[in-house]
Amino acid sequence: MTEPISVEELQLAARNHGMPLEALRWDVTPLGLHYLLTHYDIPEVDPGSWRLEVDGRVERPLSLTLEEVRARSAVELAVTMECAGNGRAQLDPHVVSQPWIVEAVGTARWRGTPVGDLLAEAGVEKDAVEVVFTGLDRGVEGDEEQLYARSVALEELLGGEAILAYEVNGVPLPPQHGFPLRLVVPGWYGMTSVKWLARLTAVDEPFDGYQMRHSYRLREEDDDEGMPLTRMRPRSLLVPPGIPEFLSRRRIVAAGRCELRGRAWSGIADISGVEVSTDDGESWSDAEVERDGLGRWAWRAWRLEWDARPGEFVLCSRARDAAGNVQPLEPSWNVGGYANNAVQRVAVTVTG
Amino acid sequence: MTEPISVEELQLAARNHGMPLEALRWDVTPLGLHYLLTHYDIPEVDPGSWRLEVDGRVERPLSLTLEEVRARSAVELAVTMECAGNGRAQLDPHVVSQPWIVEAVGTARWRGTPVGDLLAEAGVEKDAVEVVFTGLDRGVEGDEEQLYARSVALEELLGGEAILAYEVNGVPLPPQHGFPLRLVVPGWYGMTSVKWLARLTAVDEPFDGYQMRHSYRLREEDDDEGMPLTRMRPRSLLVPPGIPEFLSRRRIVAAGRCELRGRAWSGIADISGVEVSTDDGESWSDAEVERDGLGRWAWRAWRLEWDARPGEFVLCSRARDAAGNVQPLEPSWNVGGYANNAVQRVAVTVTG
Repeated sequence: MTEPISVEELQLAARNHGMPLEALRWDVTPLGLHYLLTHYDIPEVDPGSWRLEVDGRVERPLSLTLEEVRARSAVELAVTMECAGNGRAQLDPHVVSQPWIVEAVGTARWRGTPVGDLLAEAGVEKDAVEVVFTGLDRGVEGDEEQLYARSVALEELLGGEAILAYEVNGVPLPPQHGFPLRLVVPGWYGMTSVKWLARLTAVDEPFDGYQMRHSYRLREEDDDEGMPLTRMRPRSLLVPPGIPEFLSRRRIVAAGRCELRGRAWSGIADISGVEVSTDDGESWSDAEVERDGLGRWAWRAWRLEWDARPGEFVLCSRARDAAGNVQPLEPSWNVGGYANNAVQRVAVTVTG
Repeated sequence: MTEPISVEELQLAARNHGMPLEALRWDVTPLGLHYLLTHYDIPEVDPGSWRLEVDGRVERPLSLTLEEVRARSAVELAVTMECAGNGRAQLDPHVVSQPWIVEAVGTARWRGTPVGDLLAEAGVEKDAVEVVFTGLDRGVEGDEEQLYARSVALEELLGGEAILAYEVNGVPLPPQHGFPLRLVVPGWYGMTSVKWLARLTAVDEPFDGYQMRHSYRLREEDDDEGMPLTRMRPRSLLVPPGIPEFLSRRRIVAAGRCELRGRAWSGIADISGVEVSTDDGESWSDAEVERDGLGRWAWRAWRLEWDARPGEFVLCSRARDAAGNVQPLEPSWNVGGYANNAVQRVAVTVTG
């Protein structure tokens, strides 16, 4: 982080919620601590009159009540979800939008009905290529009034594990997580998991709504077409050791044996290893990574014992996945400030 | 807001949670949307080994399990709670700490056992003047390592409605709200309602811990002794009308009849009126204020019909209480940036 934050960015930071990093200690993030980005306003939804419409290139359009959705086949998935803008505030030059440092993440147990099953029930036409998911949250962005909407390729939906979720951590979705129904696409950045769902529309050409055409693309310059953001790049974070100083958030650790712990995830492939540095990335040691966690789509816990001697330290962790992706030491800049998975640096004072 | 926000302030804004203002539409703030300020870290508490100790100037010290606390007399109170630092980011000169704009508030139903009953059970000695409430959250502040601790005058506890709460909105406290037990002092700024309670200590002279002596005092200069912060000053906020522009959060409203709605509260005395301005405080109209809400300690809903004509507007609301306190149009500065209850200004574009 190199530049101060503007008033507009503070307005966003004050209403969107990061996960306090000590919450990394829980396998499943307690409700209320999961990160939360609301583009427009949290809409007020009357569950009695609400319907899920399934239309477009389908043989049998559907209009379902919440009870009808809940009566269908159900699965529960533990999913780590991260905002595509996580790490944005560390970019230089500064990118103006929601200023996440590293805390836009959380893991939840989502329960719902598989999207693929619902699409099969509706009978998707052979010429359909994508499904557009439209939410009830309305606002203006880029001078364009819009309902938040994103599309997902049909093959991703039919072959994948995406669900329409109506419960989180065992309770009905609270308003901020998409009541009464939201999409959850495991492994993808959060923008794809549309909240407050109103409509699924099968389309025969790629959807070019604002959130596909303009937002959530990796661009080196403003007028690049750019590449769409999809799956989460590998990242690891440390459970902050010791205790914090209130204002600087510097960590104070007592000298001696200190177990460093954290979480690592990748939406691209399984985590294959996590390395830890106590000297700001000069040297690295392999952490012990748990093998049996909450399943493929949830973060994995890791740990490493550290013999902490008095002094000043910068702790880092670096995850790699089975597809060969490794967290970089420094961010790579892009216009929207997306997908910055550079290693976290945690300043620690070890006291004697 | 006049100056940009530093990296240290962003670190705080990224981990503490404001209430998105559209949540003003609910009488009781949904769990996960209530404001949240954590001085140090959310502690991890094992409810099995946890005990509440009641000691100091008492005849019969107590050491209670959570079940023993829950077995005692119970009340439920709807309480609007606001951070003493709410409004800080609007002060000029800039005050460096958690940069709240206006959103550090929420209303919850807290269930717990009256503090006065527990103190009577322990038999407070005649020479006791205060009770010190000590939490399990540890950190460093002002170069002083400390557990978060605040005291409350005995007469306030014996004559008031303070409770030790173990439930919020009908569920056990989640970690971030003070699991397993917290103090709730209705009408007071939030710093007094100590979370993650471990100990109540009756003392025979005023407690001078860091959070009493240094923090949470109104000072005009650094070396003033200052006055302690106590009860919430009157404030009112608008449910944001219309829809937002993503980055500026400017509101877009369609011309025509528009019901302006909001909430108002004061910890000092009942709300006696709310005025609304659509011309940045040049002229005011009385809003209709609900009389039977959730009780004395919860905010009151108010409403006013507005015939919105196309153009640019700045909406304001101004609450007054039965003790004669009125929200000021401009902030009054103090060293800690506390208790700034200046009227909110909401920029609105009415489209034809």
